[in-house]
Amino acid sequence: MAINFGNFFNSNNSKKSKLGDFQDLDHIDGLSISTISANLYNSERDDLVMFYFRKQAEYASVYTQSNIVSENIKWNLNVKNKKISALLINTRNANVFTGRKGYQSLKDIAEELSVRLSDKQKADEETPEKVKSNKIIFACTGTIGEKFPTDKIKKNIPELVEKIKYTQNKYIWAKAALGILTTDLVPKLAMEECKIGSTNVKIYGIAKGSGMIFPNMATTLGFIFTDANLSSSILQKLLKKNIETTFNAISCDGDTSTNDMVTIFSTAFAKNSKIKNINDPKIKDFDIALHSVLLNLAKRVAADGEGASKFITVSVNNAKTQDDAKKVAFSIANSTLVKTAIAGEDCNYGRVIMAIGKSGVVVNLNKLVIKFGNIKIVEKGQLSSFYDETIAQEYMKNEKIEVFVDIGTGKKRFEAYTMDLTKKYIEINADYRT
Amino acid sequence: MAINFGNFFNSNNSKKSKLGDFQDLDHIDGLSISTISANLYNSERDDLVMFYFRKQAEYASVYTQSNIVSENIKWNLNVKNKKISALLINTRNANVFTGRKGYQSLKDIAEELSVRLSDKQKADEETPEKVKSNKIIFACTGTIGEKFPTDKIKKNIPELVEKIKYTQNKYIWAKAALGILTTDLVPKLAMEECKIGSTNVKIYGIAKGSGMIFPNMATTLGFIFTDANLSSSILQKLLKKNIETTFNAISCDGDTSTNDMVTIFSTAFAKNSKIKNINDPKIKDFDIALHSVLLNLAKRVAADGEGASKFITVSVNNAKTQDDAKKVAFSIANSTLVKTAIAGEDCNYGRVIMAIGKSGVVVNLNKLVIKFGNIKIVEKGQLSSFYDETIAQEYMKNEKIEVFVDIGTGKKRFEAYTMDLTKKYIEINADYRT
Repeated sequence: MAINFGNFFNSNNSKKSKLGDFQDLDHIDGLSISTISANLYNSERDDLVMFYFRKQAEYASVYTQSNIVSENIKWNLNVKNKKISALLINTRNANVFTGRKGYQSLKDIAEELSVRLSDKQKADEETPEKVKSNKIIFACTGTIGEKFPTDKIKKNIPELVEKIKYTQNKYIWAKAALGILTTDLVPKLAMEECKIGSTNVKIYGIAKGSGMIFPNMATTLGFIFTDANLSSSILQKLLKKNIETTFNAISCDGDTSTNDMVTIFSTAFAKNSKIKNINDPKIKDFDIALHSVLLNLAKRVAADGEGASKFITVSVNNAKTQDDAKKVAFSIANSTLVKTAIAGEDCNYGRVIMAIGKSGVVVNLNKLVIKFGNIKIVEKGQLSSFYDETIAQEYMKNEKIEVFVDIGTGKKRFEAYTMDLTKKYIEINADYRT
Repeated sequence: MAINFGNFFNSNNSKKSKLGDFQDLDHIDGLSISTISANLYNSERDDLVMFYFRKQAEYASVYTQSNIVSENIKWNLNVKNKKISALLINTRNANVFTGRKGYQSLKDIAEELSVRLSDKQKADEETPEKVKSNKIIFACTGTIGEKFPTDKIKKNIPELVEKIKYTQNKYIWAKAALGILTTDLVPKLAMEECKIGSTNVKIYGIAKGSGMIFPNMATTLGFIFTDANLSSSILQKLLKKNIETTFNAISCDGDTSTNDMVTIFSTAFAKNSKIKNINDPKIKDFDIALHSVLLNLAKRVAADGEGASKFITVSVNNAKTQDDAKKVAFSIANSTLVKTAIAGEDCNYGRVIMAIGKSGVVVNLNKLVIKFGNIKIVEKGQLSSFYDETIAQEYMKNEKIEVFVDIGTGKKRFEAYTMDLTKKYIEINADYRT
């Protein structure tokens, strides 16, 4: 399950995703990146990634809706500062069910980081500031219930701080995107450039998706960075607004991690005018670009779901409410029968009908439309007289499958993104010990 | 996917289920059975099974909660009679998305059956009655959206009526239980004998579970027969009361069929005293026996779920409400990550924790207990100090796995039954065309 770091940029298909190549990310003022191996996997792969903001960053987060959350999420929720200095991500251990000790580990690591980063401030900055331990947040992904590797991480903090790069390039970004992966097959990066008023700003992001190493589970992490000068309250509103149709629109197996986390950071190095309200027309362009980065990353997470051979878009249209559309979309996207049929390249509209029915949402059967791609299968609630199974089966050979549904009860819509359910998924999740 | 009918009783392991052999069913007064092949599979396997009540039967049904239901369920809902004369079950075609034509097919078949059964009444009964077409109900299971094979079925009605047996034995019951299967591997039969007051009565039942033939889906059918003299309103109350913790406590893949149906019939040949209220102490014994038959059948359906290698019981205890317990139980029982781990014989309690967390139910983490079988893994919300992974992994080799959870918020409990998720499931549901 190891990712080949060394040869990553030499390999021809290293950047291949079902959604095409990722974009090359470049430099964002006020941001620094550092990645090292703390030997958490007993291998040389990078497993600690730090994003450091030397002039601090405004930030906003959304977390898993699970009632059982990891210690790092508890820590982050206790960080009440609107600005922070660093985000530290570790893989291999999710710091869940580790109790008080797991929380104390984060405190110890934050204190060590605080000392080392404060020293670096003294050495590098004209007006150095003390980097407080309560201005550091954490993301963890990996096994549940195992002792957190505090000492291994702490021991490597000096090297992590030493390796801080104030200037980024595509290689450093790729190294960071690789360093946060578990069993993901491809790194996930996305970027947009846009304007706030007349000021150019950048929005960069990386993510990791569902992966399995030891007895653990899928975790989604997404980190967005911008040089835009935006307050944490504006960031929070923009993130909340855009997360519903992006990261909350993907599903791999319907399971939810204890560690899911998407955070946006703004270094505020760009000289854009102050935004006080998300309805300000000057933020419109940024809003759209942020949605685009989040959607790009979210789709890449779904496309790289465990064992995926196909990327599936489920589009539910003309619903009474967006919530209705979402329920139907996820009823289809989470149906193991639909997902195994697509894995078998079978245009099994019967299972789509079943999933619509079991969603609990009232549909107008007389208006029901089901299409696979552009192939109309059901219209006005009946099998289309033009439906030709040969053409449909040909369509199913594609790597990207679109399931279109019109439930005819209103005007709202929702798109969900998922992947097919293959034997490979079972292998990854059941057979890895044998 | 064909079931070997001919050699069924010669085969040594023909009755083998993870839950042990099924019971032998015998005779119920007032009930007749007939099974034939209408060549719906283009093979000689039985695909039409009729239960005929020559003196009619009181009955009660529960149906799928899906918003899209099959034409036969629509038909049954339109039958307003409290007593009926026959139940006809066909496999191969689910009569879903067949529109008005699919409904008309049932009308045609009911009329043909009405004529033939009325003729039989004239020939066999001292006081013959006309068998009305609106006293016949249907169960269908098989493909969705395909033309219903009306002619093939109608053509075979005379033979079906001719083959009616007024006396049953274990062979006829097994033939009926086999005739309603799709890709189930084993027939499902169960029985109990009990008393109403001082009168001995029988409760017999057969069921079919999740199976796949062509592009279709899992359908659960359950039929219970008793000679007890009970009104349809008492039957309805008893069925509703007992279905929640039996057929509604099983899950194969979280998908719901358009055709699910469980029906109980009473021929009223037993001379028990009249029961007017389900709180009557005289019905207590029957109530318990009915629950036992339903649970026995439901578990057999789960144990024979597609691709199942293990039967899983998820028991959630000490919840505030039964609904809370049920939500947590199904969050675990429907988790593909939990089910693949069990398929891989991996004692992955981390995934159970994840599934508890994502259920949305508030749990008392300080009291949380998780056991696999008798092996205590989590207690007081922490990994038990006695937990020994070697012993746990040994336990996982069993064919029956019990996941026990205590969420410590009250006194209610719920048990859900499911099976593991194997490569075989994917094969059955994805690869059958290749």
